[in-house]
Amino acid sequence: MIRYEHAIACWKELLGTTCVITDPVVCDEKTASCLPDSHSARAIIRPCSASQIPEVCRIANDNGIAIYPVSRGRNWGYGSAAPSAENLVLLDLAELNKIVELNTELAYAVIEPGVTQGQLYQYLTDNNIPLCFDVSGAPPGASLLGNVLERGYGQTPYSDHFLFSCAMEVVLANGEIVRTGFGHYENAKAQYLYKWGLGPFLDGLFTQSNFGIVTKVCIWLMPKPEYFGVFHFAVRDTEHLCTVMERLRTLRLEGTFRSAVHLGNDIRVLSALQQYPWEEAEGKVPISDALKSRLLRQWGAAPWNCAGGLRGDKREVQARLRRIRRVLKGVARVHFMSDSVLSKLAPFAPLYQRLFGVDVRQKLAIFGLMKGIPTERPTQGVYWRKREKSRTKDFNPPADRCGVIWCAPIFPLTAEDTRQVVSTVERVCEKFHFEPNMSLNLVTPRAACAVIGIFFDKEIEEERELANACHKELLDTLIASGYFPYRMSSQAADQFPQLFSSDDPYWDTCRRIKQVLDPRGIFSPGRYGL
Amino acid sequence: MIRYEHAIACWKELLGTTCVITDPVVCDEKTASCLPDSHSARAIIRPCSASQIPEVCRIANDNGIAIYPVSRGRNWGYGSAAPSAENLVLLDLAELNKIVELNTELAYAVIEPGVTQGQLYQYLTDNNIPLCFDVSGAPPGASLLGNVLERGYGQTPYSDHFLFSCAMEVVLANGEIVRTGFGHYENAKAQYLYKWGLGPFLDGLFTQSNFGIVTKVCIWLMPKPEYFGVFHFAVRDTEHLCTVMERLRTLRLEGTFRSAVHLGNDIRVLSALQQYPWEEAEGKVPISDALKSRLLRQWGAAPWNCAGGLRGDKREVQARLRRIRRVLKGVARVHFMSDSVLSKLAPFAPLYQRLFGVDVRQKLAIFGLMKGIPTERPTQGVYWRKREKSRTKDFNPPADRCGVIWCAPIFPLTAEDTRQVVSTVERVCEKFHFEPNMSLNLVTPRAACAVIGIFFDKEIEEERELANACHKELLDTLIASGYFPYRMSSQAADQFPQLFSSDDPYWDTCRRIKQVLDPRGIFSPGRYGL
Repeated sequence: MIRYEHAIACWKELLGTTCVITDPVVCDEKTASCLPDSHSARAIIRPCSASQIPEVCRIANDNGIAIYPVSRGRNWGYGSAAPSAENLVLLDLAELNKIVELNTELAYAVIEPGVTQGQLYQYLTDNNIPLCFDVSGAPPGASLLGNVLERGYGQTPYSDHFLFSCAMEVVLANGEIVRTGFGHYENAKAQYLYKWGLGPFLDGLFTQSNFGIVTKVCIWLMPKPEYFGVFHFAVRDTEHLCTVMERLRTLRLEGTFRSAVHLGNDIRVLSALQQYPWEEAEGKVPISDALKSRLLRQWGAAPWNCAGGLRGDKREVQARLRRIRRVLKGVARVHFMSDSVLSKLAPFAPLYQRLFGVDVRQKLAIFGLMKGIPTERPTQGVYWRKREKSRTKDFNPPADRCGVIWCAPIFPLTAEDTRQVVSTVERVCEKFHFEPNMSLNLVTPRAACAVIGIFFDKEIEEERELANACHKELLDTLIASGYFPYRMSSQAADQFPQLFSSDDPYWDTCRRIKQVLDPRGIFSPGRYGL
Repeated sequence: MIRYEHAIACWKELLGTTCVITDPVVCDEKTASCLPDSHSARAIIRPCSASQIPEVCRIANDNGIAIYPVSRGRNWGYGSAAPSAENLVLLDLAELNKIVELNTELAYAVIEPGVTQGQLYQYLTDNNIPLCFDVSGAPPGASLLGNVLERGYGQTPYSDHFLFSCAMEVVLANGEIVRTGFGHYENAKAQYLYKWGLGPFLDGLFTQSNFGIVTKVCIWLMPKPEYFGVFHFAVRDTEHLCTVMERLRTLRLEGTFRSAVHLGNDIRVLSALQQYPWEEAEGKVPISDALKSRLLRQWGAAPWNCAGGLRGDKREVQARLRRIRRVLKGVARVHFMSDSVLSKLAPFAPLYQRLFGVDVRQKLAIFGLMKGIPTERPTQGVYWRKREKSRTKDFNPPADRCGVIWCAPIFPLTAEDTRQVVSTVERVCEKFHFEPNMSLNLVTPRAACAVIGIFFDKEIEEERELANACHKELLDTLIASGYFPYRMSSQAADQFPQLFSSDDPYWDTCRRIKQVLDPRGIFSPGRYGL
C-alpha cells in the first residue's frame, strides 16, 4: 500500500519539518539538470546524520514510497540530482558531510556521502597533511563517495575510484546496515586497508545500481610525491593519434605510466578556455574549420593534446621520462614541466602564451588534476554553446541553463579502434551540428575511455531535441560497433533498452538480487534499468 | 526430492560412463588432502567440455544432489580437492583445460578452470610470446582460475589475482550462463580489457563463495620486462623486522615497489631447502635454537629474509633501487641481483654458497616466482616434518601423507601490528610443538598477509590432533586481536563459527543472495559458511 502523506509526516517527525521540503519550486530547482529532459521530485528529505538513514528507509519501505538518494548531485551531464523516474522523493545526503577518520600514517580517509573533493582538499591543506588523492574532472563541489559508486576516475595512479576505495557502510531497504570488506567484524584492524574481506565480495553490488544507500566509504590517499611533473605533447590529426595510442599502450602496459593519460581534442581545449565564438561565427554552428584553426593558433592548442603526470623520486621520474621519449621517438616531441616550473609559471601565463604560443591556464588546470587539485575548469566547458555571457556567481550550470550530455564508451587501445571511435563521434556530432568535443583517457593499460560532451544551450528547444537525438544516434552507433559505455546518466536507461534486456542472464541475475535486497523497489526505480 | 541413483544415471548418459566414478577407493584418493581431517566424495564426475556444465548443473538441481566443483585441487593446505561436506559429488573440472584465447597485443589469456600455471608458462615459452603472468606459490600443476576465485596472490605487479582478471563465465544452479563485465554483450570489444562493465559489478559474488561455477575467466598478462632484478636483504630479529616493515610501507605507499614484497622467516627458508633434521634433533620437536642457528649458518639464511622484484627500463630500476637503499639506509643492507647475474649464477649455486655463505637454490626459486616462473620449491616445505625421505615421483604431498594447514591473516603494515602477529604465531606454534613457519607478504601498500604453515606428519595421529588444535588456537587468537584471514580452507567454516554469524547483516545478505541464486543449495554446501 502506498501512503505518501503518512510517509511525509513520519519523515517530518524523524527529521524535523524544515528537513522535509514539498514546495514544488524548490524541488524543481534542486533537481534541475543539464540534460535535455529530466525528472523532478515530489519532495526532498534532508537528513543531517547517517544514523537517521535506516529509519528514513524503513519509513519509505513501510509506506511503499520510492526514494532517490543523491550525494551532492554535481554529476552534471550524467543527471545531477534528477531522480531516475517521476514522482520520487529525493533523499539529499549533502548534510552527511563528515570526514569520519583521516589516517595519515596508513593514508586513507573515511567519508560520508556529502564530503566533496574541495572539502577534502581543503582539510588536507589546512592541516598540513602530506597526502593527496585522486580527483575527478567534476567540480570541487562534487561528492567523492558518489563518484566511487558511479565508478568514476581521475588522472593519478589512484585513477579508478571504486578500486581505490574499501569498506562500505550500506543501508538496505529494510533498514539493515551492511558493512563490507572486513568492516562487519567489529575489531578488524585492516578494515580500511584491505579491499576484499573474507567470503563473497559484495561491494560491486552497490555501484551503478539501486540496491542500497551507501552512507560511508574509505578512500585511499597517496603520499605527496617527492617530485612531480607533467609530460605533454601535441598530436596533429587522427592518423597521428592512432599511432600515438599504440605507443602509449606499450608504455601503459609495461608500467612506465602508472596514471591515466589524457588526450583532449581541439574543441575540448577551446571549450574550457572560452565560449563559442558567436560573433566571428556569425551565429552559425558548428564551428568552421577556418575559425577553429584561428582559435587553436590563438590559444596554442593542437588538434589533440596529450598529457600525463609523473610522480616519484626525481631520478625515477627522469628515467621514466627518458623511456617515454624513447618509445615515442619519431612519433611525438615530448615536453615536460616539473612542478616547480609549473608553479613559477602560473603568474606569467599571458607572457608565456605570447612567447611560446601556448595557453597555460587550461594546461595548469589539467596538470593540477593530475597532481590531485580539484578545479572547475574542465566543467566550465558546459558554457561553450550558451548565448549569454552571464553566469551565476556560484558556478551553477543547471541554474544557468547549460546543456550537456556525457557519453563515455570504453574501447580497446588499438589504432583501429581509436580510428573507429573518433570518426564515429566526429561524423555523428557534425550531423547534428555539434562540435565533436571529446577526450580519450587511458584508464587501463588495455582500454581507453572516450568522454564525449554534447554541449548545448538548454534555453533553446531545438538544441535540446538535437542533443537528445545526437546522443541517441551516437550511443546506438557505438554500441552496435561494440563500444559500450562505462556508466550511464540517471535518465538514460529507458532510451537504450538494448543495454538492459531481461533476456540477458546478467540483468536477470541483477533483477533477482534487486528483488531480494529491495523487494518493494523503494530505491531509485529504473536506475540502470533495475 | 533427492534422487541420487537417478542423477548418477543422467550424468553417465550425458558424460559417458567412464567420466562418472563411484569407486570409493578412487574417490578417497582424489579427495585426499593435507589437512588433518577432510571429507571424501561419494562420486566423481569429470566433464570434458565446458558446454556440458549447464546440463551437469540441471541434473544436480533437478535431483537435489549437491556437487563440489574443483579446478585442479592443488591448493594443498587449503583443502585440495576435498569437498566442503560429507556425501557430496565431486565435480572435477581438470579436463576443461583450454587456453581459449591468447592475445599478445593486448596481453591477456582467456582460460578454463583446468588450465595450470605450468601449462600457461609452457604455452608462452613454446610460442615465444613475450609476455609473462603472476604465479602463486602453489605448484605448477595448480589451477589459475581456481586461484582467482580464492583471491590468491603472487609476487609481481599483478599480484592480486582476482583484481587482474575479468569477464567471468558463470553457470548458475539452474543451468543459466551469466557472463560478467561487458562479456554479456555479444559484440563487446573491450570485454577482456575492462573489469567493471556496466551496472552492478557481480564478479565478486563468485569469489570465495558457492553461488555458481566459473567456467571461464580472462587473466591479464604482463610484457616481459626489459630489465629485471631482485633486491634482497637480511633481517636479524623481530624488532629489526618491525623497523623494516615501516620503511617498506613508505616505499610501497609511494609506489617505488609495484610488486608484493616477501619476507620469509628462518623456518620458511629451511623447510623449502631440507626436511626436519631428525637425526641431529634426536627425534625431538620443535627444533632447538642451537640447531636452528647451525642450519641457518649452513644455508646462509637469516632470521628473516626479505626479497622483492624490480622490473622496467634499466635506468628506472636503478633509480628505484637507489631510492630503496636511501629509505632503508641505516636499517638494512640491500643487495641486488639482476636477471643476467641470476641466470649465470644458477649453475654455480654450491660454489656461491661456499664463497658467500648464501644458498641460491631457494632464493632462485623465490626470485623466479617474482619474475613469473612457476616452481614447486615453496610447496616442498610440506615435507618438512615427514619422517620418511621417500616421495612419490610426481610430487604429490597428499598421497605422501604430508600434513599442512595454512593460516593467512591480514594485518596493518605497522611495527606494532607486525610485533603482535609475529609474537602470537611464535607463542602458539611453540605451545603445540610446531616451528613457527611463516612469510609476510606486502600484498597492498597498507596491509600485509602473514602466511603461516602448520606442517605435520599426517601419518601420526597425535600430530594431526596437535595441528588442528594449534590452528584453532592460532586463528582464534588472531581473530580476537583483530587479524582476520583473507581466505579459509574448504574444511574450516565449522571450526570458526564466529566468522560466519547469521546475526551479522553481511552474512545474512550473502545467504539471501545464495537463496536466490542456488535455492536448492546444490553448490558446495557449507563453503565459507554458506
